[in-house]
Amino acid sequence: MKTDRDYMQLALDLAASAKGNTNPNPVVGAVLVKDGVIVGTGLHRKAGEPHAEVHAFQMAGDHAKGATLYVTLEPCSHYGKTPPCAKLVKESEVSRVVVATMDPNPAVAGRGINMLKEAGIEVEVGLLEQEARKLNERFIHNMLTSKPFVISKFAMTLDGKIATYNGQSKWITSEEARLQVHELRHEVDAILVGIGTVLADNPSLTTRLPHRDGKNPIRIILDSELKTPLDANVMDTSEASTIIVCNPHVDVTKMSQYEEKGATILPIEKDASGLKIEDMLDELYKLGITDVLVEGGAEVNASFLRAGFINKFIVYIAPKLLGGRNSKTPFTGFDVETMEQALQLEIDSFEKVGPDLCITAYPKIGESK
Amino acid sequence: MKTDRDYMQLALDLAASAKGNTNPNPVVGAVLVKDGVIVGTGLHRKAGEPHAEVHAFQMAGDHAKGATLYVTLEPCSHYGKTPPCAKLVKESEVSRVVVATMDPNPAVAGRGINMLKEAGIEVEVGLLEQEARKLNERFIHNMLTSKPFVISKFAMTLDGKIATYNGQSKWITSEEARLQVHELRHEVDAILVGIGTVLADNPSLTTRLPHRDGKNPIRIILDSELKTPLDANVMDTSEASTIIVCNPHVDVTKMSQYEEKGATILPIEKDASGLKIEDMLDELYKLGITDVLVEGGAEVNASFLRAGFINKFIVYIAPKLLGGRNSKTPFTGFDVETMEQALQLEIDSFEKVGPDLCITAYPKIGESK
Repeated sequence: MKTDRDYMQLALDLAASAKGNTNPNPVVGAVLVKDGVIVGTGLHRKAGEPHAEVHAFQMAGDHAKGATLYVTLEPCSHYGKTPPCAKLVKESEVSRVVVATMDPNPAVAGRGINMLKEAGIEVEVGLLEQEARKLNERFIHNMLTSKPFVISKFAMTLDGKIATYNGQSKWITSEEARLQVHELRHEVDAILVGIGTVLADNPSLTTRLPHRDGKNPIRIILDSELKTPLDANVMDTSEASTIIVCNPHVDVTKMSQYEEKGATILPIEKDASGLKIEDMLDELYKLGITDVLVEGGAEVNASFLRAGFINKFIVYIAPKLLGGRNSKTPFTGFDVETMEQALQLEIDSFEKVGPDLCITAYPKIGESK
Repeated sequence: MKTDRDYMQLALDLAASAKGNTNPNPVVGAVLVKDGVIVGTGLHRKAGEPHAEVHAFQMAGDHAKGATLYVTLEPCSHYGKTPPCAKLVKESEVSRVVVATMDPNPAVAGRGINMLKEAGIEVEVGLLEQEARKLNERFIHNMLTSKPFVISKFAMTLDGKIATYNGQSKWITSEEARLQVHELRHEVDAILVGIGTVLADNPSLTTRLPHRDGKNPIRIILDSELKTPLDANVMDTSEASTIIVCNPHVDVTKMSQYEEKGATILPIEKDASGLKIEDMLDELYKLGITDVLVEGGAEVNASFLRAGFINKFIVYIAPKLLGGRNSKTPFTGFDVETMEQALQLEIDSFEKVGPDLCITAYPKIGESK
């Protein structure tokens, strides 16, 4: 005998399968159950395509009448690219709707649910809510802040080193861990590095997956003085788009050289502590970027950290010890005096990936924006 | 119905309960089973006290006849502080003996087993051998190398920092993790730090456990020029013993000041790469020290690392990010050029301790002495 929780878990699994494909939309899964039998399933596959509920009702047909709908996110109540799902749910004559979590946008949250309740449908909200919110952490952050969700990813040795003194870092982690990072690149809209990384490693920052095509994230280079070589791998814009964030006071003809190669120049002001990260994030969101994977280096990482704009940390730790007085570490930036001034995180999960460990952590409440 | 494996696991659990109390001896557990009933159990509690088998046979009395003996380590075959256990086993007329692992000392390994076989007892060796060897890793290392087993323990932030630029490190980890470290101190014979740590933190390096008395390890201070203040906490030898390792060329009257306060001076030569770690370990073993917990700082850690004398790593990672260009990292020492020169480890286990992570790792085979 399956329970409400089982069906919602299935809806969550359906939603999760589309992670990275639905931006800027959330991932959503829906399951329709009548008399203990699943009569409809659906998920939102891609922005512009039907919502999860639409697929589920199409599959269910007449069986939807009197059924229970399990849906991971409150059905929408507005006309967008598709008609409101709440209307569809109402018309389908389901008898009960179980919702994992409400629409995160405070301006609209609850409207879809009210529409259903007014139609006399029994509605329950909050089943597996935490899981549903985590699954759409990027979307929720977007709705609440109008900024991209920022993930800081780094790989280090067990003694906290990301490179030797001369910048050699190939490879810290195993092939398994590096493959997982490419999966992550596939899921995000953009990847961000500093000019130091471009000059040191000349990375292409594209997604390389075995057995299938990866989606390349937009490459964002923090390069205040436009020092990126015009023949750098990130300037091959046939493969992936590139945004170069520079000082607005840089010579315009210099800017146009990059634009001619297909890159977008994004001028952002500095203040005393460096690039105005918040302004940049606002601009990137306006450009449609809903999440950014920050891959360093150490100074870029630190500037995001101190500004309070990292929303999630993914850390790979390789079972190696490098030592060295001048080896590089993942976060540098300015020195603080006491251990209390460290940014406080919470470990969410940890797992072995090949020989390495992968730790996922979030800033403690109040520790980031 | 219990299996051989279940009984051996019980014997291992009995052995493990005495960890830290039996040095220089191994921990050993024994279980006697007759007709599916446990008729005797025993463990080696402390050097000089009876071996595990003796307790088990005492408990079993006449029931031992025809029983099966499960024992975590090959019964001894020599007269030491107690008569040989193999003799006792033989005389007790057990019909079968299951041994997890042989005596690690190659010069004696197998003799106990042969003694039993010659008496017509059925003997099996190797059940849960890996577990048994891990439980006595310290003892096995002692037997094979005549050196103490060296454990490197350190605590760092998730960005690999052990202190701020000015040495502030209180506290990186949680109370739960710090308590676990005191349990570890209770288990080892000695704890080792460099003079830098003594001057910076003036630690007492004693074992503080709630609800019970901890055993204080011997404190070993690497202090080539004898800069330890005579009123430092580690010089309070009423609480715990102290060994100061110094350059043999230091003024003898200076040495005697420390000896008058109850400390032992251990002069060890240097070579081009610093203190001769191997010579020191040989001397410490002669002094009866079977394991050493190395607690830093970063230069001391690195000198052990590069000399290849760390046998086990216990790393606490706190979910904090400190950043800073001059923050301290757990291993410094000389800089290497490439990532390939990192010491290769294998992660053995990892677990959450309060909010922190604890990772246990061993050098890969061939990576340490």
